Amino acid sequence: MQEPLRVGIAGLGTVGASVVRMLRTNSASIALKAGRPVEVVAVSARDRARDRGFRLEGIEWFDDPVALAHSNAIDLFVELIGGEDGVARASVRAALGSGRSVVTANKALLAAHGLELAGLAERGGGTLSFEAAVAGGIPVVKTLREALAGNRIDRVYGILNGTCNYILTRMEAEGLTFGACLKAAQELGYAEADPTFDVEGWDTAHKLAILTSVAFGTEIDRESIFVEGIASIEPEDIAAADELGYRIKLLGIAQRTETGIEQRVHPAMVPKDSDIARIAGVTNAVAVEGDFVGCVVLSGPGAGGHATASAVVGDILDVARGLRVAPLGRPIAALEPYVRAQMRTHEGGYYLRLRVPDRPGAFAAIAQRMADHNISLDSIVQRNRPPSSAPRHLCDQAQPVTIITHETTERAIRSALGQIEADGVVVGRAQLIRIENL
Amino acid sequence: MQEPLRVGIAGLGTVGASVVRMLRTNSASIALKAGRPVEVVAVSARDRARDRGFRLEGIEWFDDPVALAHSNAIDLFVELIGGEDGVARASVRAALGSGRSVVTANKALLAAHGLELAGLAERGGGTLSFEAAVAGGIPVVKTLREALAGNRIDRVYGILNGTCNYILTRMEAEGLTFGACLKAAQELGYAEADPTFDVEGWDTAHKLAILTSVAFGTEIDRESIFVEGIASIEPEDIAAADELGYRIKLLGIAQRTETGIEQRVHPAMVPKDSDIARIAGVTNAVAVEGDFVGCVVLSGPGAGGHATASAVVGDILDVARGLRVAPLGRPIAALEPYVRAQMRTHEGGYYLRLRVPDRPGAFAAIAQRMADHNISLDSIVQRNRPPSSAPRHLCDQAQPVTIITHETTERAIRSALGQIEADGVVVGRAQLIRIENL
Repeated sequence: MQEPLRVGIAGLGTVGASVVRMLRTNSASIALKAGRPVEVVAVSARDRARDRGFRLEGIEWFDDPVALAHSNAIDLFVELIGGEDGVARASVRAALGSGRSVVTANKALLAAHGLELAGLAERGGGTLSFEAAVAGGIPVVKTLREALAGNRIDRVYGILNGTCNYILTRMEAEGLTFGACLKAAQELGYAEADPTFDVEGWDTAHKLAILTSVAFGTEIDRESIFVEGIASIEPEDIAAADELGYRIKLLGIAQRTETGIEQRVHPAMVPKDSDIARIAGVTNAVAVEGDFVGCVVLSGPGAGGHATASAVVGDILDVARGLRVAPLGRPIAALEPYVRAQMRTHEGGYYLRLRVPDRPGAFAAIAQRMADHNISLDSIVQRNRPPSSAPRHLCDQAQPVTIITHETTERAIRSALGQIEADGVVVGRAQLIRIENL
Repeated sequence: MQEPLRVGIAGLGTVGASVVRMLRTNSASIALKAGRPVEVVAVSARDRARDRGFRLEGIEWFDDPVALAHSNAIDLFVELIGGEDGVARASVRAALGSGRSVVTANKALLAAHGLELAGLAERGGGTLSFEAAVAGGIPVVKTLREALAGNRIDRVYGILNGTCNYILTRMEAEGLTFGACLKAAQELGYAEADPTFDVEGWDTAHKLAILTSVAFGTEIDRESIFVEGIASIEPEDIAAADELGYRIKLLGIAQRTETGIEQRVHPAMVPKDSDIARIAGVTNAVAVEGDFVGCVVLSGPGAGGHATASAVVGDILDVARGLRVAPLGRPIAALEPYVRAQMRTHEGGYYLRLRVPDRPGAFAAIAQRMADHNISLDSIVQRNRPPSSAPRHLCDQAQPVTIITHETTERAIRSALGQIEADGVVVGRAQLIRIENL
């Protein structure tokens, strides 16, 4: 049995506390698997007095995580502070700079500074692991970086945000509005008081930026991601999807195309019988398509202290075992610059929902604009609303029209929609949801 | 860039040829990821002249795989011969004994001799990798051995045989018999001319034996697996499962119990909305339940040259990168002896289908025997056959009775069934299918 691996943990929130608990609960088997004991010897957190359900006796306390990262008392620095800058970044830089290995669950940090940090690890001689930063307990980083590394990856996509999937699942199951389901998610602790980061798609985008780099061997580029959230999804979209054999999911998709790599986050209509459509509630799932393996799907808990701790401890075990893989799967110098496929060249089917005043010729005008752009239609359906006894204005008289297109380009559909709006044959904002034939 | 990893491949069938093709097709990215080129420098196969779609020029040929395994021209020996003994075993022993690393896709070899071979690797200083031996392209060995290694695993189960899942999927979709679907599977190349190994559950058992060891840290023990195949499943069982909200799947299950670890392979009724129930056709899936991670499900192609090659090449990349993990996740000396949970103590619900002659008291006699064994029934249903104009014998007059029990033990249900048969209130063989509430 070798010397213990001495671990310092910065951040003792839900995940940090779970990591300490996991390392203690399963210490015997972890030592056998690692070939050496794994010991938490130092921690840093905001509040020393807080009751975390375990004792800090025998563990060195640091008020300053950067000081912990510099400490010679530790071999491995575990960053669970969060945030893309500030002490999280400073402490990770300090640890890597001093040659220590780092395990982090911090997706924002990786998405913003992953390339810099991977370079620091490479030069310092430590490792940088971040399985917990993407899809919680699901081992997708290891799968891409190691298990499927022989493949040329053509597409990676998935449900990477449990909050959004919970909201969409409930909207579908109960016919509720986005707002009502968001409120329920907040009451259950599945959504933050300020849910913007989740529901606007940014959380998914950060995770996707990391996956893209590891999957395609490109530099991380979170700025080039096309991002749309789920706040605009209405019960009638969910109902229409259902009738058409689809479900609406917020997907993060990275896909090799002729002009570069698409990275996009948006609500998508996916066939009900696809693997991704079946993922309900807060569960996450990632599908990986490789030239030899075909499609592998991983699903499981994407968040939560215990599941995230499982990923952190898996990374810690790699360090304890002495496994060394380049953080992004290949040396920094071997990463290719990320070449963005422009969203306007995206190809796919589209679902549109328009509100069309009930007057002769409106249908024909819309169909003509689609034809002008070479967009062929799978269906165009007017859904009549039940008659109401209340007084009706022009706006009330508008009927929802649902259009499903065959494959076309984002450029064509956007241009057609712009002209339809300019023609004045629709009222208010058009709804557009991309169809993914997974 | 370091020296190339020199690979010798024994066995150039479908998988072997795909491995050569994959290493060539993706050689540039593989070299970047591995930090060194990966080169096939020597091969051994039965027929040198056979056209495999690629040239063997510049590759050293060995008629004898054992000689290849001993050759100083290679760093890594890839065994794709198959079979639990003979040259496969001899060559793997030779390679490990001479300190070389081994990658193999040979489940039978591992299930029979994994412990011995892991010991040889440990003593020789090489590694032994076998991702491709279980569930083809799905990285379940790496996931258990590394990513989820911090967890205490409580249950691993899955669909590990694509042939059986294809047959069961078709039986359900088309209402066909086992025999008809087996024939279709054979015509499509999904089943061997002699399908015994697959449909009797042995293939699943071999894979399960390997998974159990890696998941639970126990010595491989394929002899202790309870195995039942799918040949006895009839369309009326599939139909009854459907009505009850279940699907029938051939599962391999390893589960921690109070008396030891259950290893069992048998057809099981699983709830239609479970992850496993949704796996259709030749696809494989494995679910892993850990104390911290909860449940992670991996699914994908379980067979086929290309998908299996993906797993083999993933293992080769690990060797090229210098990753070293004990073959069974921990040193041989740290493996625990496998303690078998006896099948008679298995607890669960049961589906029974009996043929009961249409005479007064039969129902009551059956129900009484169940009550005698403290088995409470969820339902007992007599399915009347449509009247026939043909002459009826006693046997024809027997009506199928379907019973669903609440949770009980294998011992109780077996004893009750034995007595019911002794009572003479049933005709022919009773069908028994375990219910898994996944």
